[in-house]
Amino acid sequence: MLESLLYPESIAVIGASRTPGKVGYAVLNGLIEGGFEGPIIPVNPSAKKILNTRCYKDIRDYDGEVDLTVVVVPTRLVKEAIVGAIEAGTKAIIVITAGFKETGKEGAELEKEIAAVCRNAGVRMMGPNVLGLMNLHHKMNASFSHVTPEAGGISIISQSGALITSILDWAYGNHFGLAKMISMGNKADLNEVDFIRALGEDDDTKVIVSYLESIDEGNLFIRAAESVASKKPIVVLKVGTTEAGGRAASSHTGSLAGADVAYGAAFKRAGVIRAETFEHLLDCGIAFAMQPLPEGNRVAVITNAGGPGIIAADAIEECGLVVTKLTDESINELESNLPEAASTANPIDVLGDAGPEEYAMAVRIAQADANVDGIIFLLTPQAMTKPKEMAEAVTQVIDGSKPVLASFMGVKEVGPGREILTSAGIPQYFSPERAVAALKAMVDYHAWRNRPPRIVTRFPVNRRRVERVLHRHVKLGYREIGEVSAKEILRAYDFNIPEGHVATSADEAVDIAERLGYPVAMKITSPDIIHKSDLGGVRINLSGPSDVMDAFDLMMLRIGRKVPEADLQGVLVEKMADRGLEVILGMSRDPQFGPMLMFGLGGIFVEVMKDVTFHLAPLTAEEAMQMLVGTRSYALLKGARGQSGVDMASIAAGLQRISQLVTDFPEIIELDINPLIVGKLGTEAVVADARMTISGVDEK
Amino acid sequence: MLESLLYPESIAVIGASRTPGKVGYAVLNGLIEGGFEGPIIPVNPSAKKILNTRCYKDIRDYDGEVDLTVVVVPTRLVKEAIVGAIEAGTKAIIVITAGFKETGKEGAELEKEIAAVCRNAGVRMMGPNVLGLMNLHHKMNASFSHVTPEAGGISIISQSGALITSILDWAYGNHFGLAKMISMGNKADLNEVDFIRALGEDDDTKVIVSYLESIDEGNLFIRAAESVASKKPIVVLKVGTTEAGGRAASSHTGSLAGADVAYGAAFKRAGVIRAETFEHLLDCGIAFAMQPLPEGNRVAVITNAGGPGIIAADAIEECGLVVTKLTDESINELESNLPEAASTANPIDVLGDAGPEEYAMAVRIAQADANVDGIIFLLTPQAMTKPKEMAEAVTQVIDGSKPVLASFMGVKEVGPGREILTSAGIPQYFSPERAVAALKAMVDYHAWRNRPPRIVTRFPVNRRRVERVLHRHVKLGYREIGEVSAKEILRAYDFNIPEGHVATSADEAVDIAERLGYPVAMKITSPDIIHKSDLGGVRINLSGPSDVMDAFDLMMLRIGRKVPEADLQGVLVEKMADRGLEVILGMSRDPQFGPMLMFGLGGIFVEVMKDVTFHLAPLTAEEAMQMLVGTRSYALLKGARGQSGVDMASIAAGLQRISQLVTDFPEIIELDINPLIVGKLGTEAVVADARMTISGVDEK
Repeated sequence: MLESLLYPESIAVIGASRTPGKVGYAVLNGLIEGGFEGPIIPVNPSAKKILNTRCYKDIRDYDGEVDLTVVVVPTRLVKEAIVGAIEAGTKAIIVITAGFKETGKEGAELEKEIAAVCRNAGVRMMGPNVLGLMNLHHKMNASFSHVTPEAGGISIISQSGALITSILDWAYGNHFGLAKMISMGNKADLNEVDFIRALGEDDDTKVIVSYLESIDEGNLFIRAAESVASKKPIVVLKVGTTEAGGRAASSHTGSLAGADVAYGAAFKRAGVIRAETFEHLLDCGIAFAMQPLPEGNRVAVITNAGGPGIIAADAIEECGLVVTKLTDESINELESNLPEAASTANPIDVLGDAGPEEYAMAVRIAQADANVDGIIFLLTPQAMTKPKEMAEAVTQVIDGSKPVLASFMGVKEVGPGREILTSAGIPQYFSPERAVAALKAMVDYHAWRNRPPRIVTRFPVNRRRVERVLHRHVKLGYREIGEVSAKEILRAYDFNIPEGHVATSADEAVDIAERLGYPVAMKITSPDIIHKSDLGGVRINLSGPSDVMDAFDLMMLRIGRKVPEADLQGVLVEKMADRGLEVILGMSRDPQFGPMLMFGLGGIFVEVMKDVTFHLAPLTAEEAMQMLVGTRSYALLKGARGQSGVDMASIAAGLQRISQLVTDFPEIIELDINPLIVGKLGTEAVVADARMTISGVDEK
Repeated sequence: MLESLLYPESIAVIGASRTPGKVGYAVLNGLIEGGFEGPIIPVNPSAKKILNTRCYKDIRDYDGEVDLTVVVVPTRLVKEAIVGAIEAGTKAIIVITAGFKETGKEGAELEKEIAAVCRNAGVRMMGPNVLGLMNLHHKMNASFSHVTPEAGGISIISQSGALITSILDWAYGNHFGLAKMISMGNKADLNEVDFIRALGEDDDTKVIVSYLESIDEGNLFIRAAESVASKKPIVVLKVGTTEAGGRAASSHTGSLAGADVAYGAAFKRAGVIRAETFEHLLDCGIAFAMQPLPEGNRVAVITNAGGPGIIAADAIEECGLVVTKLTDESINELESNLPEAASTANPIDVLGDAGPEEYAMAVRIAQADANVDGIIFLLTPQAMTKPKEMAEAVTQVIDGSKPVLASFMGVKEVGPGREILTSAGIPQYFSPERAVAALKAMVDYHAWRNRPPRIVTRFPVNRRRVERVLHRHVKLGYREIGEVSAKEILRAYDFNIPEGHVATSADEAVDIAERLGYPVAMKITSPDIIHKSDLGGVRINLSGPSDVMDAFDLMMLRIGRKVPEADLQGVLVEKMADRGLEVILGMSRDPQFGPMLMFGLGGIFVEVMKDVTFHLAPLTAEEAMQMLVGTRSYALLKGARGQSGVDMASIAAGLQRISQLVTDFPEIIELDINPLIVGKLGTEAVVADARMTISGVDEK
């Protein structure tokens, strides 16, 4: 994929300049200095030769093949340059020039135009407003960066060109090798989905490291990322996480589910590792590029001093990894080879006067230990310590069977040791905590890769009935689906709904109640009232005919007075559900990633504690259960304080049924079941109240 | 304080060696190479001169004054060396030699002996098992480190000598200046309390950076740290945070309050900044050493690219600082001096082609802006960027009125700029997030420095009555104080206790109930039963004489059967408290830091959600209120979901009264009021149940 862009055999530079300091000079110089081996075709109307390379007045004058054209002319000339390049037969275009969407409306128009020109010609375009592109295994630096790092396994996809300059400087300064450097700029044509797909098939790319401000096509992103992540890790720093969501939402789910939650859910689904900070992004990058994945979460720590060992052990436990127990054989071998004062338990402390042999031996023993999945080794530059020799000795024993990450703590004294480690492909970090955080990402990614196959259960349901209810609402112009109709829809998806009917008079209410048997609940029914209880529109536990009559008349009277414009269709009289734990199931449709399901315990747990979990639909049985387990209040579901637990399977099934419903009916844009009442094991959960919002109807 | 140790005028080295590679050589060499200006007295039985310095066979042969003696002889000779040094009139001793407590029982004995020798002579000792001591403003390197950093404002106190070698290497490699380097080793005599006090009075020390594994004297530590922190910041990395507490505790408070919670509470009280990681420790160190404190939490960000600005803004909001709104004047000035495409809102983006003038101007404007308390400036090495010149320009405009922290993102290209910043005293970090985290520590510290004066209210109470109850329990050998007596104690401290009496027969129970008026609660009364409800020993809401009779007889019968050995003294009959919100107030006594108070909402909030806050006693009114505000469920206290709030003042007063009680009576080692029932504003909270544990009684 994107062959001509990423692996071109010839490159034209429209706007090549002979003036050092200009972007058009820097790009041409980068290609030449980088050692690009195919034809380089500078285009400049007034130069014969630049940097000793023959120049063309017009790209159409060149009679060879052009795979890739880099455009660096002023903004107003870009379109013309693109047209020329297309006519000259270019197969891909990079527009480095800025001055488009980022400058306002006029620029945005121009950007649309150039994208259309490319699209119509079937030529893919990267940019505009980019730093450029590098393929370091192809000796291609088609960018105006004057830094060319070494070739290696890390590929960068970034929405900020400036940030790439920092990453290039970091890679160059530390001798970390890169595969591709992709600056996406304004993403007028090619975007993260295209590049992730392409890098998925690029054998030189061992890990994709990405800085993203936005994702344009949520579902395509998930599909592409999930597919690529099953082959190689994708680490993303997604920024703009704290921007106020700003979206008005009438449901609980809607108000709790900001854009950042949706990104989190999407990344989880797709197996994308979310970096916590810029440094963590790069820390993960080198770990994945250099080391094999751990098979599990059991970590051995080797250190030449106690303190750093404790720091590492704290970090390991805090992030949910395990400070492993070494096998007896390992402990025996360590004991017979290390001085008595050394610690042979994990962390293994070889002591400050340990030489390279002892240090490397401890790493070798940990590597061979069946109880060890990953190794962190630490070094402080004590008086007897030889960082360089110790690094060399360790590189001799590492066999690549398990991930090995290092922290040589310090700057100058440990410097030579660090260089040895880097050139031997061992990632090394300033602090033990950072090494642990990188290993944690590896463990999580390995667990994701080995997740059970995602099988989404399809329940037999009555779709026709839902269609009818939805159709009726659209026809009547009702955007909100109230309790009665929402329950009709849920019943069609086999939810357990209490028996009940809408009464239009007090007498009818009593008739219904007598038929159902007391106690009953009564709730106002109106397409114009969403928050029934705020208006006194909910009464529960009514136990006799006079209570029912009073409730009917008072409700109609008082709500009629409070909201005179509301269309009061009557009062729903329902059999009271058995007592149980109240939980909320919800759905809110994210503009990028589609239906996102929410779970939380009812009442204060959602409203005060915000103790909720989210997951994108469609949902598997395992994922539904994970949503329950992920809440802080999970112990209440399992049974706490001497109370027996509730039927969690019925909650999980409810989440799966909602997942199916909202996948089947994209017009449902919000949904709350609040509460679902769940009883003890073996009982069926009951929908006590529900509501939905649909699209396609103008807000009244 | 510690004059002779930290600022000696003459130094003897017992065990000075002429063999390079030996510690005794390294120490002597360090003193000479470091340029120590007073007499240096090597002591070695067989050398005449070492490193061109006259040697003595015995320290007693030297006829001048000896302020400080450094001991580096083998373990078995240490005591003899110390005796000699004391006889020679030394005023302070550093024992570098290891082989003491850390090796086992025998070493611990020897350590006690040498500490006693020093104590008896009135000579303070540092160590044993240390790297040594440096006073870089005094040209003193009395350690076996061969790295001597520059003189500066950061002082290090560390319990790990090896970790100091990393810090020295970091400081040396980055040109960060240090004041004192203190390796505490086994802390046989001098410990963190002594050193914090001494550094508090050391004018060269601008910030104390400390690595601690344990604190020996909790209360002294708090007092010393609080006093010093009011003059200069103390940043501590406390490790061993995840070690299993292991302490069996029968109360809620006890089981929730691990050692790490106590350290957290102690640091909060003392104004100690707790570093999250090793890197954060050092990041804070340079920020405090180099920059003034911010007056508030409003941050301006200056950047030469959008991406890093977003990263910084996210980090600022996430940690609770504020991305400030600049004044109109600032925005106008920026607008008229920057190109149109630049962003003049905060973050201020001067764009990638900005030169040193634009960049420095933005910093100057932000510095002068009345809405700005602190500045973060960021730089990516883009094509037109001149890191060195831009750093230079910024250093010209910074006037020291507000903290300014930088992140020059990259390694090699930005290197020269970083060096300029460091030598100009501007801390700089690899990533924006780390700069923000350091600034956050400064903001928090400034807020602590400006906290209201701590005034602990003393309530009028009846101490005599408490003494009588406690005395009675000690006499009877009861370690647990059950509900009836616990309430008697609490009543003496003016808690609101429901009226009630212990009945010893069913008839008496009815008599009491009739007098109190229905409904009543009934609870089994026995010194042997702690968890009454687990045994069916609690009945509530009993509304008539027959209920009361039944409850009495059944309780006595069934509990008598279940726990035949329990001494059942009767049943407490109490007036039911009005309904309200249930909260828990507790106290658990930490071995280091003394009484620690706990607050949480009752039931699941404590047991399932672990939503509790802690604070050390004695407690001020503000601190008590902070304990309420600090819970996640605080909204429920204030009033949520249309419910009115509760009387928070009565909870806060309750916490203060407990604080006074447990300060007055150290023999109370655990206490739970569970629940305290709190009603709406203006009502008094009622103690529904309570229990305590006292010391001084053997567990039965």
